[in-house]
Amino acid sequence: MLIVMKPQATEGDIRGVCEKIEALGYRAHPMPGAQRTAIGITGNQGALEAAEFESLAGVAEAIRVSKPYKLVSREVKNEDSLIRVGTGENAVTIGGRELTVIAGPCAIESREQAFAAAERVRRAGARLFRGGAFKPRTSPYSFQGLGKAGLEILAEVRREFGLAIVTETIDPENCDLVEQYADVLQIGARNMQNFSLLKRAGRSSKPVLLKRGMSATLEEFLMAAEYILSEGNYHVILCERGVRTFADHTRNTLDLSVIPAVKRLSHLPIIVDPSHGTGQRDKVTPLARAAVAVGADGLMIEVHPQPERALSDGCQSLYPDQFEALMEQVSAIAAVVGRTTAKSLPIFD
Amino acid sequence: MLIVMKPQATEGDIRGVCEKIEALGYRAHPMPGAQRTAIGITGNQGALEAAEFESLAGVAEAIRVSKPYKLVSREVKNEDSLIRVGTGENAVTIGGRELTVIAGPCAIESREQAFAAAERVRRAGARLFRGGAFKPRTSPYSFQGLGKAGLEILAEVRREFGLAIVTETIDPENCDLVEQYADVLQIGARNMQNFSLLKRAGRSSKPVLLKRGMSATLEEFLMAAEYILSEGNYHVILCERGVRTFADHTRNTLDLSVIPAVKRLSHLPIIVDPSHGTGQRDKVTPLARAAVAVGADGLMIEVHPQPERALSDGCQSLYPDQFEALMEQVSAIAAVVGRTTAKSLPIFD
Amino acid sequence: MLIVMKPQATEGDIRGVCEKIEALGYRAHPMPGAQRTAIGITGNQGALEAAEFESLAGVAEAIRVSKPYKLVSREVKNEDSLIRVGTGENAVTIGGRELTVIAGPCAIESREQAFAAAERVRRAGARLFRGGAFKPRTSPYSFQGLGKAGLEILAEVRREFGLAIVTETIDPENCDLVEQYADVLQIGARNMQNFSLLKRAGRSSKPVLLKRGMSATLEEFLMAAEYILSEGNYHVILCERGVRTFADHTRNTLDLSVIPAVKRLSHLPIIVDPSHGTGQRDKVTPLARAAVAVGADGLMIEVHPQPERALSDGCQSLYPDQFEALMEQVSAIAAVVGRTTAKSLPIFD
Amino acid sequence: MLIVMKPQATEGDIRGVCEKIEALGYRAHPMPGAQRTAIGITGNQGALEAAEFESLAGVAEAIRVSKPYKLVSREVKNEDSLIRVGTGENAVTIGGRELTVIAGPCAIESREQAFAAAERVRRAGARLFRGGAFKPRTSPYSFQGLGKAGLEILAEVRREFGLAIVTETIDPENCDLVEQYADVLQIGARNMQNFSLLKRAGRSSKPVLLKRGMSATLEEFLMAAEYILSEGNYHVILCERGVRTFADHTRNTLDLSVIPAVKRLSHLPIIVDPSHGTGQRDKVTPLARAAVAVGADGLMIEVHPQPERALSDGCQSLYPDQFEALMEQVSAIAAVVGRTTAKSLPIFD
Repeated sequence: MLIVMKPQATEGDIRGVCEKIEALGYRAHPMPGAQRTAIGITGNQGALEAAEFESLAGVAEAIRVSKPYKLVSREVKNEDSLIRVGTGENAVTIGGRELTVIAGPCAIESREQAFAAAERVRRAGARLFRGGAFKPRTSPYSFQGLGKAGLEILAEVRREFGLAIVTETIDPENCDLVEQYADVLQIGARNMQNFSLLKRAGRSSKPVLLKRGMSATLEEFLMAAEYILSEGNYHVILCERGVRTFADHTRNTLDLSVIPAVKRLSHLPIIVDPSHGTGQRDKVTPLARAAVAVGADGLMIEVHPQPERALSDGCQSLYPDQFEALMEQVSAIAAVVGRTTAKSLPIFD
Repeated sequence: MLIVMKPQATEGDIRGVCEKIEALGYRAHPMPGAQRTAIGITGNQGALEAAEFESLAGVAEAIRVSKPYKLVSREVKNEDSLIRVGTGENAVTIGGRELTVIAGPCAIESREQAFAAAERVRRAGARLFRGGAFKPRTSPYSFQGLGKAGLEILAEVRREFGLAIVTETIDPENCDLVEQYADVLQIGARNMQNFSLLKRAGRSSKPVLLKRGMSATLEEFLMAAEYILSEGNYHVILCERGVRTFADHTRNTLDLSVIPAVKRLSHLPIIVDPSHGTGQRDKVTPLARAAVAVGADGLMIEVHPQPERALSDGCQSLYPDQFEALMEQVSAIAAVVGRTTAKSLPIFD
Repeated sequence: MLIVMKPQATEGDIRGVCEKIEALGYRAHPMPGAQRTAIGITGNQGALEAAEFESLAGVAEAIRVSKPYKLVSREVKNEDSLIRVGTGENAVTIGGRELTVIAGPCAIESREQAFAAAERVRRAGARLFRGGAFKPRTSPYSFQGLGKAGLEILAEVRREFGLAIVTETIDPENCDLVEQYADVLQIGARNMQNFSLLKRAGRSSKPVLLKRGMSATLEEFLMAAEYILSEGNYHVILCERGVRTFADHTRNTLDLSVIPAVKRLSHLPIIVDPSHGTGQRDKVTPLARAAVAVGADGLMIEVHPQPERALSDGCQSLYPDQFEALMEQVSAIAAVVGRTTAKSLPIFD
Repeated sequence: MLIVMKPQATEGDIRGVCEKIEALGYRAHPMPGAQRTAIGITGNQGALEAAEFESLAGVAEAIRVSKPYKLVSREVKNEDSLIRVGTGENAVTIGGRELTVIAGPCAIESREQAFAAAERVRRAGARLFRGGAFKPRTSPYSFQGLGKAGLEILAEVRREFGLAIVTETIDPENCDLVEQYADVLQIGARNMQNFSLLKRAGRSSKPVLLKRGMSATLEEFLMAAEYILSEGNYHVILCERGVRTFADHTRNTLDLSVIPAVKRLSHLPIIVDPSHGTGQRDKVTPLARAAVAVGADGLMIEVHPQPERALSDGCQSLYPDQFEALMEQVSAIAAVVGRTTAKSLPIFD
């Protein structure tokens, strides 16, 4: 159920409604909007009585939410969510007019590699840096990431290049460590329904980038995000990264139709990862253009200073020059769909 | 095998090589190029000896074609194929710089409906008109099209509005009739591996629009086109229209990555049908933008003067006003990727 | 709509109802049952009035059919359909207590090959012989079958070995020829929605074996069968042959759950083709056992006297000895699920 | 690499080889076999030199393992693995001649419900009891299990009915608790690539039941098992539970071909869960028969005393009477494929 407050409702009115909800044993999710505040209720078994809330001070109406997902739904919050990432000079807003570009290597391999990548993606206009310190790999014998040493390098990258850091967390305990370093916690496709991790991320103060599972329906994707919001963290960015089909000309099949589908149902921003979505370097830029054209809020791109020597996902990583060309092209598309990009910000001055 | 002629080879040299090929019981496919002619050989069982051809007059070299598809391959023909459609004032070239837009209703229902649609799509900038006279329907009890009467209406649309006509043919016998009316023969997704129909279309003088089957791999798609070319009709336009996956938020999953994949392997043009690709009116325009951004040579869009009254596929058909808006948007994207559109040509004057 | 006649209704009553239906411009499908006759009505647009029929002589009731498929549905005919194939000594009934086994090579390659296969599969207990004379192949350059010469060989096999013949027809015109030779017309997976061919087969006097398309839903599969029945041919055998998925350890993913699903919805018999369903020789026998255990009415198995020399599908064809072992195993499973097999019938005596 | 010891190699020889391996910084996995011991090596980057090991005392040969999975492979261990579960009277062996049947409710809801289910499944011949105390649910608002209280009930079920307990663990920390109660740790489909959980389970002394992910290839499935073995726990039971496809007549598509495919590549036992595999009560028994016929080592079946009142997965749970009938049928099939069942053991005496 959603309690919509009157425009003139006071802080006290809002607090009163939340206290009433919690006294009944449920959870209150106040969501301030431009015009007025709404308060989502979760934790109830079965339907609630609207009348019980509509008589409280400051309440405009109590609305039943028809979808299985509640807090992620446009029924509960109609305006697009803006997710603020980083602080001070590194601060970026995701979901607004500016197209978000996250770029960097699949895995952090060394300080040199990370710095070389960061310098180039920053110069080309990326505002966020990606790089895995903890890598979930299909084989137990593959490179699993540098771990804490990788996180330290990422912290240096942030300081040195003014890039906000997006990096993956792989289990609840690991989240304790990663959230000390990351500006955005990434949850990978294989963990989209790792509900323990989703709940833990839901108790973090850091925004969460949630990748769609390889065979997740739209409803399952939104329900996974709902797990995070239901624990109190409303700062979730969705990410389409391709789904698994019979098609064998790409590693996954990038499902760009999910972008307008999400936009219709949810207020959360959604970005696209054409690197994993195609698995092939020469397909990344065309699909990045398409992602911006379809209406995505941003892109996540793998860039490596020497892709042929990468310890993971080399064949889908762009050369820095290719990333620069990509930024040129997506900036032009972005302009057509009413978005801006920070294609080329001055650094070191 | 591919016989590459010398730049200075004469008509007689080319004829000589073709005769030699046919004397051996194979089929020769001469393909004139900007610089020089190549001659594809099909019909052989097992490998051929290069030496047997390299000694002939005018031959530069004989190259083994490594792919299972031959005539559709860039190995055989490196330059993009340009497909000329229609004649006189209706003439259009597909695969060149101008973005091709095919629009019209799913099925021809009446002269009034067809004219109303044609007038609007023409005015908005479409150069080709689509509309089914013979409709393959999942149920034997659904509307199966007006048949020959529908073709007559299509011929009137061509005369009246100067639009080239794209319409579906459903079996080899039916092709005899349809090719008398159509400028482009459409082969639907369910018939992508109807090899009798492919061979018949391969003997037609009309270009063929071949839709990808619902679960066709890229190789199967190109092999289906190869059937048409192997019979001598080199004027094939491919069309991505969505594939079948577990995803349930759209009717099909539009696989835009197939566009750069086709471009890499084949010289044939490829367009996108976001109407069938999504099955939902509100997804058509975003995916049309994405299709142009990814590099498609054109679009095929369902437009109906009154979608809510359509006899088939109403919920994916655009209102004429929506189609106009789509044309505005894709024209802007087209400009960014180096293409032109005929967004708004004068008619009736 | 379904008109259920009273048990004591006369031939004249039935004829009267059919005439009434046809006078209204619809099509009548009388279906005699053990207790009483039912008459299906197709061809109407929109719902019919029950009262219009319930007042006719001999009519018990008029029932609306809720499914999109009518004639194939258990709503219209509750008892399992028994399909009689062949004549005289070759006669076999499909859908009854005896498990149907169809075996033979993918393609007829020569008289010797066909006879060698026929002799062995007959001895091992198969009652029907499969073998393609017209082969739909992914590549135009692959062996396409012996054509009419192949059909002649099949006719010899029938005479010599007393096996009923199952062979594929690939288009409506080709059906004119094939139905002169075949006891059962096979329609392949790629043609499951070749509606012209379905309609033509619906006008044949021969039973039809309809294979499920590679990405056909259950409803589409039953609708394809409905096309055949709607033209008057009620002798349809369905065949599951694997569907296309992301899984790569078999050529297709055999969907055995479709057997009980079909049994619930339709009166038509359904068999399983584990040869195409797996594409791997060593998986055929285990999946054949499973198919019988799940409740299939029969099996279709590729057997070749020398699989390593087969012109098509060699790697999924069993050696004759393997087929004998398969028959032993499926006979034992059949006994458990209440079915009989003709494992080893005397021949040449 | 795999070090195969001579039949007469001593304990000291084996220890010597292991010490050498560990001195090199790798991990040694000694695997005693009927004839002789083999020692797997993991943890190396790049190939090892066979000569380095073949000179050690007691070594017969050093073999390179060609597959990406090592310890799960038949290359490393040719004989079928037998997994011993439970202790004393509850002891059961999985992977041997006796068909394993695990049955019980989806979730433990109460002591009464669990006891009612246990009494019936025990009487019908199940030797292991399933029931979730921690439930991974798509929605954060669905019943998530009784938690520790559920585990206490499961421990009572073991004592009271002599059933070994199979229950799910959902994250590494939770594993500390669950392994105190469970005889078999279950890892669900959504967690098949939760590598932190796999590694934690690999350090447990309890056998692990690993369910195939919804879109996992065979290689990914085996690699997930490899994670568990690589940490030292060789007691893994695989479980096929259906994969996600376009097909909509069942909740998932049960892929029975994976059973012979696993048997060929791996020594690990594999069972089938037709309850999740179909999601429909009336499909469970036919697919259970098929699973035994195809060669599975066992079944996992949801049984609830009152399915219509179940808190989760009610529509796929069998009534106890249906489970008894299932056991009758699968026992008959099992006999045909050379297996025994403990269909009806006396209890309470």
